[in-house]
Amino acid sequence: MQVAFTSAEILAMVSPQRTAGATAETICGIAALAQAGTGDLSFLGNAKYKSEVADCRASVILLPLDFSGEPAANQLHLFVENPSVALARICARIEQLLWPKPPAGIHPSSVVAPTAKVASTATIGPLCVIEAGAVVGAGAFLQASVNVGSNAQIGRDCWLLPGVVVGAECVLGARVRLQPGVVIGSDGFGYEFVNGRHEKVPQIGTVVIGDDVEIGANSTLDRARFSRTVVGEGTKIDNLVQIAHNVVIGRHCILCAQVGISGSTTLEDYVILGGQAGTGGHITLGKGSKAGGRAGITSDVPAGAYVNGNPAIPYMLERRLVVLHQRLPDLFKRVDILEQKTK
Amino acid sequence: MQVAFTSAEILAMVSPQRTAGATAETICGIAALAQAGTGDLSFLGNAKYKSEVADCRASVILLPLDFSGEPAANQLHLFVENPSVALARICARIEQLLWPKPPAGIHPSSVVAPTAKVASTATIGPLCVIEAGAVVGAGAFLQASVNVGSNAQIGRDCWLLPGVVVGAECVLGARVRLQPGVVIGSDGFGYEFVNGRHEKVPQIGTVVIGDDVEIGANSTLDRARFSRTVVGEGTKIDNLVQIAHNVVIGRHCILCAQVGISGSTTLEDYVILGGQAGTGGHITLGKGSKAGGRAGITSDVPAGAYVNGNPAIPYMLERRLVVLHQRLPDLFKRVDILEQKTK
Amino acid sequence: MQVAFTSAEILAMVSPQRTAGATAETICGIAALAQAGTGDLSFLGNAKYKSEVADCRASVILLPLDFSGEPAANQLHLFVENPSVALARICARIEQLLWPKPPAGIHPSSVVAPTAKVASTATIGPLCVIEAGAVVGAGAFLQASVNVGSNAQIGRDCWLLPGVVVGAECVLGARVRLQPGVVIGSDGFGYEFVNGRHEKVPQIGTVVIGDDVEIGANSTLDRARFSRTVVGEGTKIDNLVQIAHNVVIGRHCILCAQVGISGSTTLEDYVILGGQAGTGGHITLGKGSKAGGRAGITSDVPAGAYVNGNPAIPYMLERRLVVLHQRLPDLFKRVDILEQKTK
Repeated sequence: MQVAFTSAEILAMVSPQRTAGATAETICGIAALAQAGTGDLSFLGNAKYKSEVADCRASVILLPLDFSGEPAANQLHLFVENPSVALARICARIEQLLWPKPPAGIHPSSVVAPTAKVASTATIGPLCVIEAGAVVGAGAFLQASVNVGSNAQIGRDCWLLPGVVVGAECVLGARVRLQPGVVIGSDGFGYEFVNGRHEKVPQIGTVVIGDDVEIGANSTLDRARFSRTVVGEGTKIDNLVQIAHNVVIGRHCILCAQVGISGSTTLEDYVILGGQAGTGGHITLGKGSKAGGRAGITSDVPAGAYVNGNPAIPYMLERRLVVLHQRLPDLFKRVDILEQKTK
Repeated sequence: MQVAFTSAEILAMVSPQRTAGATAETICGIAALAQAGTGDLSFLGNAKYKSEVADCRASVILLPLDFSGEPAANQLHLFVENPSVALARICARIEQLLWPKPPAGIHPSSVVAPTAKVASTATIGPLCVIEAGAVVGAGAFLQASVNVGSNAQIGRDCWLLPGVVVGAECVLGARVRLQPGVVIGSDGFGYEFVNGRHEKVPQIGTVVIGDDVEIGANSTLDRARFSRTVVGEGTKIDNLVQIAHNVVIGRHCILCAQVGISGSTTLEDYVILGGQAGTGGHITLGKGSKAGGRAGITSDVPAGAYVNGNPAIPYMLERRLVVLHQRLPDLFKRVDILEQKTK
Repeated sequence: MQVAFTSAEILAMVSPQRTAGATAETICGIAALAQAGTGDLSFLGNAKYKSEVADCRASVILLPLDFSGEPAANQLHLFVENPSVALARICARIEQLLWPKPPAGIHPSSVVAPTAKVASTATIGPLCVIEAGAVVGAGAFLQASVNVGSNAQIGRDCWLLPGVVVGAECVLGARVRLQPGVVIGSDGFGYEFVNGRHEKVPQIGTVVIGDDVEIGANSTLDRARFSRTVVGEGTKIDNLVQIAHNVVIGRHCILCAQVGISGSTTLEDYVILGGQAGTGGHITLGKGSKAGGRAGITSDVPAGAYVNGNPAIPYMLERRLVVLHQRLPDLFKRVDILEQKTK
């Protein structure tokens, strides 16, 4: 990982509730319990690996408060409420060290319209295009080869990775992170069938993305027919996800890779969709509802419900149907026998 | 929407068969019947919302010819054959006003090979690359960061949005619109297994796209092994769609988001595929055939047929099987009882 | 195909075990048996088309060693062990002629960090960005608009097509070919749920790609949480495929279009996944195992197994269940009759 910390630096980042043991090693790696060696930091993120701690050779181990066990020689145990969160904080520090944001300013190879407004603390890397009237907020970082359309707004401290396209009029909140190749504001898919041809319904709405949203590589979010396609604050979207026009996604949702949301569908807050799931259009997934991977959601889902399968039905029922489905050969045989008996 | 029309301007665009009422308002928004207010235009696109017209506060409403009802005060009713089509025409005008094509010419930051032929009326925006022998037709608009490979041809009045890649030798007809990140002419996926390794089958064919085709963000269309991958005139393709090598798609088809078409498959004219559907290779989907979302099409589909499910079967049969599948717990119980009775 | 070969040149490329007949034609096209005409080369790649050879009008035909039949007048038969492989070799030659690698050197429009190391025999086309510390190996070809992140390594003779993004620290072996829009090293999708919000788990690992790997257009490969996401030597990945963080893919695997592999899953060598298949996380697909298109793989797959369906089960069982599923209407009727009989 090309960075190194003393145990004192780790302590300062993690603020453990208590510690045990000590180490003189410099920490220059992170590894799972079974793989870690001298100079590594490890962690117990899942209780099922508890038995691996005793033999772990990491120099520093993050442990939950209720863990009991003694550190090895030259080993430091740090007790924290949530070892995974503590690890995330160390990794955030490493990320900053590995990939510091370059100094503010506009790279001379970028093409910025005279009427665009770029904050003096923003960093515009090489070969970006910023069209007329666009606004780039304080501290925002457009890494390279990013396109921002006319009148689009990029919030403060956003990070747009190479190849991102933000279309005209679209709006990003603060601290939005867009992975490479994300497209915000492509045309919604709308046509009227007239005289044997599909006549285009122009898509003149926008996309509005809330604060702290992250969107994965090559995902696509269509602009509304008119009005707005919306992604709420804190929602996280994985790679290759499709969000159609006029979709409204609530706050703090999780959409795994290759999910597709059809037009005008609403996801309320805290919805979770497994990978490759898809929804029909014009439906509502209630607050905190959840769908398994590859689910095909064709109608409204009540708040808090967990659905699975295609078409998606309540999870426990779907699991039961899968079992019965696999017992069909036996069922057909049983009916054969019954028919012979009752001849 | 940052543009405004008088009611006279709206009238000129829509050419209604008759009108009722009048308004003095300037129209500066479009909204659904229930959301519209003063200064908005609204429309009755679906008869099921008919009852919402009476309370609608829009200043102008587009209505079907058979609608009966009186306009409110300061409200103009416009009667047209198809309100959705009329709205689309207004939106087309708004789109032109919002995002006018920049003046013709080649932005100095673009890299155009000396042997490329760019029409004098074409607009090449910033940071494009146009390789040797490529042709860009009259009125075409390459917005920004577009790559056009050697000997590729871009038809007249095409609009290629930022990040589009058109590979060598590929051909686009007139008025083709490619959303951001579309890739035309990536290598087809072909290998021969020789001595434990997959030896590449070079893909030396092209992709040929007909007039008035639109393709959604980050969709990918592979070049043929040799010969051509084809998309027929007027076909519309949504985001994140995969078209494999040697596929032939007819005219006026609709492919919704995340559809995948395997190699050498043929779609005849007017085929419609729902989102996330996929087809096997080397099959034919007949004229006007249709598949539901997430359908897995593994064999030929007759002209006009509507299929669903995975593997896809006739729609009505599939719906019936879904119902019976959900009654499996009951069926197993019934067989249990029968077995006890006949012991 | 814009290139032409004499029959002597074809002979030199193919080295047939024996020949029959002769042709005076120059070969300037490749076509299937039924479509080929004078001046074309054709081939018998699949025994089921054997009967088409007699009427084929191609000037040169590649045939398997065991084919019996006489050439037409002015027609040359070339007998080879594997006609498809022989054709691939001819096509590779054509590919080189059609799209020769431009001379070595860095296009002046590209932005290359002073600390990047670009081999003198590498070709960096227009509008690329190469960040600090990155290494581009001998003979590598970055066609145009390619982004290479800090400290990334591009192996010798790689070909990166327009719009490719290789993230910081990621490593490509030799002869890796990345189609347009591929993203290597996007953030893995990892969050901890803390106080009602998804707190980011920074993804500070890398992606390591082996020699001779090819990856299709707009596919995305996430960097590891820490450590590495791995793709083994010779593996071929189609378009729009998603590889999550910490996935380990073995050597010589085939992943068809729109496949998704969830986090920390392992594919051993020679795994084959059909289009739109998906896997759960933290599972292992054994050596040489295979899954059909659209399979949903939720648990470990033994080496050599062939699975299908969702959830994926052994292929023959899945095929049988599909048949029985379609006989459910009949089964329900049979149980109705049994119930009436035993009343």
